[in-house]
Amino acid sequence: MLGKCLDNVRKNVPLVHNITNYVTVNDVANVLLACGGSPIMSDEPDDVADITSICGGLNINIGTLNKRSIEAMFVAGRRAAELGHAMLLDPVGAGASRLRTETAKKLIAEFRFTAIRGNVSEILALIPPLQVQVLRDASVADAVTDANLSAKAAFAKSFAAETGSVIAITGAIDLVADAARCYAVRNGTPRMGTITGSGCQLSGMTTAFLVANRENPLEAALAAVCAMGLAGEIAESRMQPGDGNSTYGDRLIDAISNLDGASLDKGAKYELL
Amino acid sequence: MLGKCLDNVRKNVPLVHNITNYVTVNDVANVLLACGGSPIMSDEPDDVADITSICGGLNINIGTLNKRSIEAMFVAGRRAAELGHAMLLDPVGAGASRLRTETAKKLIAEFRFTAIRGNVSEILALIPPLQVQVLRDASVADAVTDANLSAKAAFAKSFAAETGSVIAITGAIDLVADAARCYAVRNGTPRMGTITGSGCQLSGMTTAFLVANRENPLEAALAAVCAMGLAGEIAESRMQPGDGNSTYGDRLIDAISNLDGASLDKGAKYELL
Amino acid sequence: MLGKCLDNVRKNVPLVHNITNYVTVNDVANVLLACGGSPIMSDEPDDVADITSICGGLNINIGTLNKRSIEAMFVAGRRAAELGHAMLLDPVGAGASRLRTETAKKLIAEFRFTAIRGNVSEILALIPPLQVQVLRDASVADAVTDANLSAKAAFAKSFAAETGSVIAITGAIDLVADAARCYAVRNGTPRMGTITGSGCQLSGMTTAFLVANRENPLEAALAAVCAMGLAGEIAESRMQPGDGNSTYGDRLIDAISNLDGASLDKGAKYELL
Repeated sequence: MLGKCLDNVRKNVPLVHNITNYVTVNDVANVLLACGGSPIMSDEPDDVADITSICGGLNINIGTLNKRSIEAMFVAGRRAAELGHAMLLDPVGAGASRLRTETAKKLIAEFRFTAIRGNVSEILALIPPLQVQVLRDASVADAVTDANLSAKAAFAKSFAAETGSVIAITGAIDLVADAARCYAVRNGTPRMGTITGSGCQLSGMTTAFLVANRENPLEAALAAVCAMGLAGEIAESRMQPGDGNSTYGDRLIDAISNLDGASLDKGAKYELL
Repeated sequence: MLGKCLDNVRKNVPLVHNITNYVTVNDVANVLLACGGSPIMSDEPDDVADITSICGGLNINIGTLNKRSIEAMFVAGRRAAELGHAMLLDPVGAGASRLRTETAKKLIAEFRFTAIRGNVSEILALIPPLQVQVLRDASVADAVTDANLSAKAAFAKSFAAETGSVIAITGAIDLVADAARCYAVRNGTPRMGTITGSGCQLSGMTTAFLVANRENPLEAALAAVCAMGLAGEIAESRMQPGDGNSTYGDRLIDAISNLDGASLDKGAKYELL
Repeated sequence: MLGKCLDNVRKNVPLVHNITNYVTVNDVANVLLACGGSPIMSDEPDDVADITSICGGLNINIGTLNKRSIEAMFVAGRRAAELGHAMLLDPVGAGASRLRTETAKKLIAEFRFTAIRGNVSEILALIPPLQVQVLRDASVADAVTDANLSAKAAFAKSFAAETGSVIAITGAIDLVADAARCYAVRNGTPRMGTITGSGCQLSGMTTAFLVANRENPLEAALAAVCAMGLAGEIAESRMQPGDGNSTYGDRLIDAISNLDGASLDKGAKYELL
């Protein structure tokens, strides 16, 4: 099933408009190409409506946001929403600054994103304070572990129900949920956290999967999360003595570019909670 | 002849001012160093006149343009034109948005670029509507193939005559033309289209070639186009099992850094049409 | 001693706020992760005070500066200074444009940086005109060589005394000085100058070393300079036939990620002048 989602990306070559940070933008463009999509970047308010119109999906990543790019996120979002495009939000650094937290919340208030992807602290920063209190009592602010898996899954499903979005919370164990179902993904390796951009790459790639699999956003997001984690494992298996972080980053994108649907189906490690 | 153009770059170490997109800017800087040039980037209107003054060439790339960088393009362009610098335009995404198309047209209206490099749809977006109609009748909007080579060459020469620029239209077959002559280049591999930035890199590198070979802009651009395609072939020949897009991108710049004039002369595949 | 500085980085995982150019920003983020730190990037004036507050150090790099990022440098600098954070200035391109030179001078006038790192021409551009004249008489504008080492060391110590900062002047021979002592570092290889960003990376990494070794800024900066040079040597030793600039850049970050304190102590080549 997941392999089919990847095959659909390679068959349809979805064009994805990215408003994203300048730290990892090159990796996002390359991973979109590697998975079979096609990237275009624009963050000028006078440019984004035209650009997003020719795409099938919009990936909004708030890392290194600024006043101009924030305006562009809303202009592009309105056009993408009008056109019924797949939309993804990556709330990079939500919780770390007032501007990032509020921008992410305003985006969620205005748009119904097809998916929202972040780490647990970023996702938690998006929910209302009172609810946070309740959830903190359930240790939701901690990393996802086997010990707290069911509490975290309940949180992910409840936030999915509230936003109408697929929620992907990524970490050592990843959760991918809609209002009714939550999957746990156990692909990946610790080294993915030692390079910049694997999260941003996953958001870009997930957008392409959402565009190419419009009927099944949960499965599409799950497939992208599994694909990135599996690529991390393949990259790890190819490390030679003396290799380090930078080579690992290259191998990660290499693995995505070589991945096919059958290999994804075989290597994906997920369970319905 | 083409090898001499590369040798001149390595001998003169041309300093190139780049106003370019943030997606591929790191690759553009690295390929400029790899070919023997020296890059400097600046897109602040209050900074660009000073920066371009100490350079020999100006590379304007309109990908991820914004109001500030557009102003900087014109400020830098005026100073570069006053100083007689080599100037190149890469109209990334012309045709994809009104802002990009109009910015590229305004730049061409104000400046006589030494060279303009883009893919066929970007170049086509720059010509007046009426002429487009005529050219569309000759199938000029399609990719360059052996079947339409003479029509495409006629278009390239006519656009070169109109702009006073060397025109480089890159794709599976590349065309490099001035008003009188058009070359077809058959270097390169399909994998170059699976990574981001080979076009942006070529534009940066071509600017260095133009600076170091001011008397022969057509040959300089031809040499840069052949060098990039040849590097793509060398990169392809070095791919190992498990390697993918990211390694290919590294190998491309590696090949440029190792290329010398004699190898370029030997490996360049071009013909005068 | 230097190895201990690196061990402290890996133990404390210092969070570094970077306001840096978009050419090398990805490499800066990756080298910070590779040495054991953690990077965050933000250059929006409304975002930087919050971001810098959660960090331990601030790395200000003026390459590709613009009016917005300049404002952000001062806003972030004020908050970082209030909080007693380690602060580093990398005056990229000082001397190449009025805006860059004046911005760097204003930053030095307002803030007491823990360290300032640049090449000899950038550092020289920061000192007052009269003093420049005096120093030019001592050939200080030239690259650091064995022949002029004592004159350069005297300059570095005098500029350190004037600014209250550790001064790192990097080149074929690196100098690292405070008001009382100056070290010469002989690690590194010429190929480090053939890729973009080794200087920017060093500035980011030095900031992490300063944060994790607050009591010993001179030793911290010295350790970072030796580590980067040693990584350059390790990268060089791993080059295979056909490898070039891009692979070298990857190997450089690989070597940082694999470096430990004992190896740094063993490989560091420095002397007190």
